[in-house]
Amino acid sequence: MKISKRGREIQASPIRKLKPLADKAQARGIKVYFINIGQPDIPTPRPVWEAFCQAQDEVLSYGPAQGFLELRTAIANYYQERGHNITPDNIVITIGGSEAIHFAFSAVSDPGGSIIIPEPYYTNYNGYASFANVNIIPLTLDVEKGFRLPSTAEIEAKITPQTRAILLCSPNNPTGTVYTKEEISRVVDLVLKKDLFLIADEVYNEFIYDGVHHTSVLEFEEVRDRTIVIDSISKRFSCCGARVGAVITRNPEIYEAVLKFAQARLCPPTMEQKAALAAYQIGREVFAAIRQEYQRRRDVLYEELKKIPGITMHKPQGAFYIIIRLPVKDSEHFVRWMLTEFELEGETVMVAPASGFYATPEKGRDEVRIAYVLKEEDLKRAIHVFREGLKKYQTIFG
Amino acid sequence: MKISKRGREIQASPIRKLKPLADKAQARGIKVYFINIGQPDIPTPRPVWEAFCQAQDEVLSYGPAQGFLELRTAIANYYQERGHNITPDNIVITIGGSEAIHFAFSAVSDPGGSIIIPEPYYTNYNGYASFANVNIIPLTLDVEKGFRLPSTAEIEAKITPQTRAILLCSPNNPTGTVYTKEEISRVVDLVLKKDLFLIADEVYNEFIYDGVHHTSVLEFEEVRDRTIVIDSISKRFSCCGARVGAVITRNPEIYEAVLKFAQARLCPPTMEQKAALAAYQIGREVFAAIRQEYQRRRDVLYEELKKIPGITMHKPQGAFYIIIRLPVKDSEHFVRWMLTEFELEGETVMVAPASGFYATPEKGRDEVRIAYVLKEEDLKRAIHVFREGLKKYQTIFG
Repeated sequence: MKISKRGREIQASPIRKLKPLADKAQARGIKVYFINIGQPDIPTPRPVWEAFCQAQDEVLSYGPAQGFLELRTAIANYYQERGHNITPDNIVITIGGSEAIHFAFSAVSDPGGSIIIPEPYYTNYNGYASFANVNIIPLTLDVEKGFRLPSTAEIEAKITPQTRAILLCSPNNPTGTVYTKEEISRVVDLVLKKDLFLIADEVYNEFIYDGVHHTSVLEFEEVRDRTIVIDSISKRFSCCGARVGAVITRNPEIYEAVLKFAQARLCPPTMEQKAALAAYQIGREVFAAIRQEYQRRRDVLYEELKKIPGITMHKPQGAFYIIIRLPVKDSEHFVRWMLTEFELEGETVMVAPASGFYATPEKGRDEVRIAYVLKEEDLKRAIHVFREGLKKYQTIFG
Repeated sequence: MKISKRGREIQASPIRKLKPLADKAQARGIKVYFINIGQPDIPTPRPVWEAFCQAQDEVLSYGPAQGFLELRTAIANYYQERGHNITPDNIVITIGGSEAIHFAFSAVSDPGGSIIIPEPYYTNYNGYASFANVNIIPLTLDVEKGFRLPSTAEIEAKITPQTRAILLCSPNNPTGTVYTKEEISRVVDLVLKKDLFLIADEVYNEFIYDGVHHTSVLEFEEVRDRTIVIDSISKRFSCCGARVGAVITRNPEIYEAVLKFAQARLCPPTMEQKAALAAYQIGREVFAAIRQEYQRRRDVLYEELKKIPGITMHKPQGAFYIIIRLPVKDSEHFVRWMLTEFELEGETVMVAPASGFYATPEKGRDEVRIAYVLKEEDLKRAIHVFREGLKKYQTIFG
C-alpha cells in the first residue's frame, strides 16, 4: 500500500511550510510581521462585500463550467479597454489563478513534456507541474543582472523535443521584473520558430511603477493562437480568498480542452463570481490609488533594505515582491531561526526562503523573497526587526 | 503546435454537453424540465445566505490550504455524531467533492495506474481520471440485477499489478443503490488481501430511504489507514454552487500528499467555507425534512415511470437518481431529439444519456439517468411529457 510518487514528491509549499513555526511564535506572544506571502492588507472594495449580500438567490446552484457570462463579459471589457481584442468566448473562469496554471499546463503538455520557465519563479508552478507530471526546465536569471532574460541563444538551448511551452510571468513574482517589449519579442520569435505555446502569467498587470509600460503577450498578433494568459482577481482587487481567476486564449483547441477540464470540476464558486463581477464594475480608478500605495511601499522597502550591509538586490518595477541575496549560507535556516530563536522587543519577521523559487538545486540558498504587502510604518518596522535579526544571526553563525 | 493528448481526449461532460440544445429550446420559448443534472431545487438554508453577509472582514484573504479549523471541526463533529472517529486533522477541505476526487486519485496513483469502479458511475470520475492520467477499470453492474456488486471472484479478476484502489460510491450516483454491509465487507476483504486503497464517495449519505442503513467504509476498522472518503456539502445542504467538499483520511501519508496538492492551489474559497460552517451549525433536523421530500419524489417518479411500457429499472434506495433502460437504440439520439424536435404543449424534458456513465463501449446506449430534483407536481408533469416524447419517438424511429 504505497501512495503515489507524485504524492510523495510534490513539494510542500516553501511559502507555507514554515507557517507552523510562525504560529508557535505567535502562541508565545511574539508579534510576527508576515512579509513571506503575497497577502495584501489593502481593504477589499465595498461593492465586493455588498455583492455577497445582495446577489443572493433561493438556491445556491451550479453555474456554467466556463463561468458566468456576465463575469466573462466584464473581463473581456477589461481587456478591450487595455487594447486587446478579447471576447467572452476566449475566457474560462477558473478557481483562482492556480487552477488556470493547472489547466494551461495540462492543455499544452502530457506527462513527460516540459515547460521552460525563467527562475526564480512563482513556486506554485512546481506544485502544478508535479500534479500534471510536467517537467519545468528552469532558465536561470541572476539578481546581479537585474533578472533580465538571457540571450535568445541561451533560451533556445533549453528547448528539447519534449518542450511544449515557454512561460513568462510579468510583472514577475518573485523578482518584480517587468519584461520589456524587446525581451518578450525575442521569446515570441522563438515560440514561432520552435512551434511552442506561450503561457503568460500576467496577474500583476496593474502593479507597475515608475510609469513603465506593461507589455502583454496579447499585443503580439503573430502568436495570437499560441498564447494562454493566466489571470486572477486576487491581487488586482485584493480578493485573494475569493479564488477567481481565468484562462484567456484565442486558440479554439486549447479553449475546448480547458473547457472540458472545467466541466470535470463542474463550476467555479457561484457567489465569489458574483463578487468578482462587482469588482470589475467599480471601474479603473480603483487601480490608481492601489498602484500609488504599492509604489510608495516599494520605495520605503528599497530605502530600508539599502541600509542593510552585505545584501544584493534589484529595484522591482512591478508586482510587490523583491528577491534579496543575504550574507548567509542557508536562508531557510535563517528564516527558521528568526521564528524560533529571535525577537526584538517581542517582535519578529517572517520572509520566504528563496530556494523554493528555483528548480536548480542549491540556487537561491542565500536569497529570500519579501512581499511588500504591509502599510508603510509596519513595513519600516518589519525591515528594522529583520536587519537586527540578520545582524545577530551573523554574529552567531558567521 | 499540438495540444496535449489529455486535452484532446478528456470527455466532454455527458451531463453538460447537450446543454446548448436545451438553451436553444428555451430560446424558442419551450419550457424545459431539467432532470438531467443533480441540481436540487431545495432552498439553500437561510443561515448559509446570512453567513455570506455576516462573516465579512476587511480583507477577503487567503485561508489555510487545508481549510479553516472551525469548518474542519464542524465536519469532524458531524462524523463523530454518526459514530465515526474522525478528527479535524483527518480532514482537508476541498473545492467541491470534485477536487476531493482529483486529490484522491492523484494521491493513490501515478500516471498509468488504475482504479476499479463499478459502472455505471458518476461520469466526472472520467474527467479526473483523464486529468490525472489514471485508468478506470469498470466493473459492470446490471439494472436487471438491481446494480448489486458481483461476486468477490468477479471483482478480484479485475485487479492487475497496476491497480491502486477500488472506488465505491454509496448511495450511488447514478443508480440509487445503497450497498449493504455484506457487499462493502467483501470489498474491504479484497482491499486488504490485494493491498489496495479504498476510495469511498459518500456525498449522498443523508439521502437514504425506507429506513435503510447507510454503511460507511469508516465503519471498517481493519481498513482505517486505507480508506479515503470523498465528501461534499453540495447535496447535503443544497449548496452545489458553494464548491465545498472534503477529503477524509486517517492515513498520514495520504493526508500529507493531499495537503501538498492543496497547498499548490493555496486555499478553498474563504466566504464559501464560512457559509458551509453555518450550514453545519444548523443541526441534524435539517436532513429529516429533506430526506422525506426526496423519498416522496422518488415514490412519485417510480410510480410514474412504471406507467411507461418497455422500460427496465430498479427502485433506488438512496441519492436522487435512477437509471432506466429504454426501448430505444441510442439514448443520446433520443435526448437530442427531445430537445430539438419534440414538444408537448410547449414543453419538453432533458434527461442524461447514460453511456457517459459507463466506461465499457456500447454499455448504457439504451439507458438514461433521471435526477429527481424537481418538486412533485413538476416531476409528474416532466415524466408525462417524457412518456409522450418516448411514445412519439418510437413511432418515428421504431
